[in-house]
Amino acid sequence: MKGEKLISHSKLTVRYAETDRMGIVHHSNYPVWFELARTDYIKKLGVPYSVLEERGLMLPLTDLSCRFIKPAYYEDEIEIQACVSDVSFAKIEYSYKVLRDGELLCTGQTRHGFVNSESFKPINIKKFDSELYELLKKNKEIIK
Amino acid sequence: MKGEKLISHSKLTVRYAETDRMGIVHHSNYPVWFELARTDYIKKLGVPYSVLEERGLMLPLTDLSCRFIKPAYYEDEIEIQACVSDVSFAKIEYSYKVLRDGELLCTGQTRHGFVNSESFKPINIKKFDSELYELLKKNKEIIK
Amino acid sequence: MKGEKLISHSKLTVRYAETDRMGIVHHSNYPVWFELARTDYIKKLGVPYSVLEERGLMLPLTDLSCRFIKPAYYEDEIEIQACVSDVSFAKIEYSYKVLRDGELLCTGQTRHGFVNSESFKPINIKKFDSELYELLKKNKEIIK
Amino acid sequence: MKGEKLISHSKLTVRYAETDRMGIVHHSNYPVWFELARTDYIKKLGVPYSVLEERGLMLPLTDLSCRFIKPAYYEDEIEIQACVSDVSFAKIEYSYKVLRDGELLCTGQTRHGFVNSESFKPINIKKFDSELYELLKKNKEIIK
Repeated sequence: MKGEKLISHSKLTVRYAETDRMGIVHHSNYPVWFELARTDYIKKLGVPYSVLEERGLMLPLTDLSCRFIKPAYYEDEIEIQACVSDVSFAKIEYSYKVLRDGELLCTGQTRHGFVNSESFKPINIKKFDSELYELLKKNKEIIK
Repeated sequence: MKGEKLISHSKLTVRYAETDRMGIVHHSNYPVWFELARTDYIKKLGVPYSVLEERGLMLPLTDLSCRFIKPAYYEDEIEIQACVSDVSFAKIEYSYKVLRDGELLCTGQTRHGFVNSESFKPINIKKFDSELYELLKKNKEIIK
Repeated sequence: MKGEKLISHSKLTVRYAETDRMGIVHHSNYPVWFELARTDYIKKLGVPYSVLEERGLMLPLTDLSCRFIKPAYYEDEIEIQACVSDVSFAKIEYSYKVLRDGELLCTGQTRHGFVNSESFKPINIKKFDSELYELLKKNKEIIK
Repeated sequence: MKGEKLISHSKLTVRYAETDRMGIVHHSNYPVWFELARTDYIKKLGVPYSVLEERGLMLPLTDLSCRFIKPAYYEDEIEIQACVSDVSFAKIEYSYKVLRDGELLCTGQTRHGFVNSESFKPINIKKFDSELYELLKKNKEIIK
């Protein structure tokens, strides 16, 4: 991964239950897809997110934004690209692209605080796990 | 409540997100409605379910069954009736009716084990809280 | 409603299924709550949203943003305030506040296009229903 | 596939949003997983379900049952096996097994009516598509 930034590529097939009476994927599913992409991203970085939680770290959302460009439909083959677009001692920002056959359907961003899983109090990620912090920082990238 | 058995009556309005591309409520929402009815039932009995969980008791599902009779639609005003249809030291069974303007849309049953919230091991509900057990037993009823 | 702008107030109790393994309401439920608030808002304005759809109008999302301030928990009594914060011939913007006992948990905004329910093509809302357009415009408000 | 009956094998990774505050997969997700398995099954049989719907056929649920044996957790790699366990001119029954590393977590069954997608009236599947009916019948199997 010399010099290259990590971008995760997650695949899914649209579930029937994800559609609504408009016949399209209900917008509340995109944040779920973003999350599934974060799970893949962090695993690719070397640590399953469930393991981070067991070690006492949680990343609750503070901000979410989505732009919906084209609808997705039942049985569509979807790709979600995710990358870390910003990171500090206290916060992390992810950016996402949702695609179908290379066509952009949705973009999004989420911001998360690093918090202690018991107390929900802020954690300094560099102090908690400096290696993870450096990895995240090194891979900071903007999806174009 | 002399001699009368408790039946809870919960109300809800169908959410847009609960519909699917058939234009009807997706069947996976009925178990969620049953659960919301259980929350109301147990609160009516005198103990919020969140308090039971804090005291170390959990009631994970072991069995679920639903019969779908007529579809529900967006914005429908729904009533869910719930009662305890069986209870033993180890297990509890709830029965449900989902109605719209008195018309029966769905019936269901769920069975739950009493378990310790830390260990997920079975709990004898009579030993854990004999008052609650007696209340549940006394209110055992079949919805007709 | 002389001179007063419409703000809808929707109530709900947090469902068990809406929580996640952090023990808090999963963020993907807030867009669902916003939608439920829109349903109430538009009904208060005089037209159920399901009727608008039957008449050929749909309002798919183009943009969604949420800021999460404090977590919500199972059984919490939640209030959602919604108002129309902007409207043009082509688009409408809603703003939301999610509260528990007057405490602000989350704010949000959604933008929607007016589209034809058959073709998904843009509709000029003033031409489609000038009375509705004037009502929406007259009630444009910023929640503070 | 000489003499062999079709059993579909679907894979998924448990999503964070699918967990609840017990820390396990919320039971309302299993019907969604069953549905995803049906999508794979029918596609394997040669016809995407979305195509059947376009041709005027829908299969709304009439009955659902699940038995929950062991909980599933965030990030678990899940396999769902599905097969047609019964079929008549009017109805079809599917059976499911949910597994993690070969360990049985849940079994289930769903029954569906064949209905016209416009009128929601019953359809005789043999008259609607005798080839599909014969395929389904030929592959009738019980998962053991």
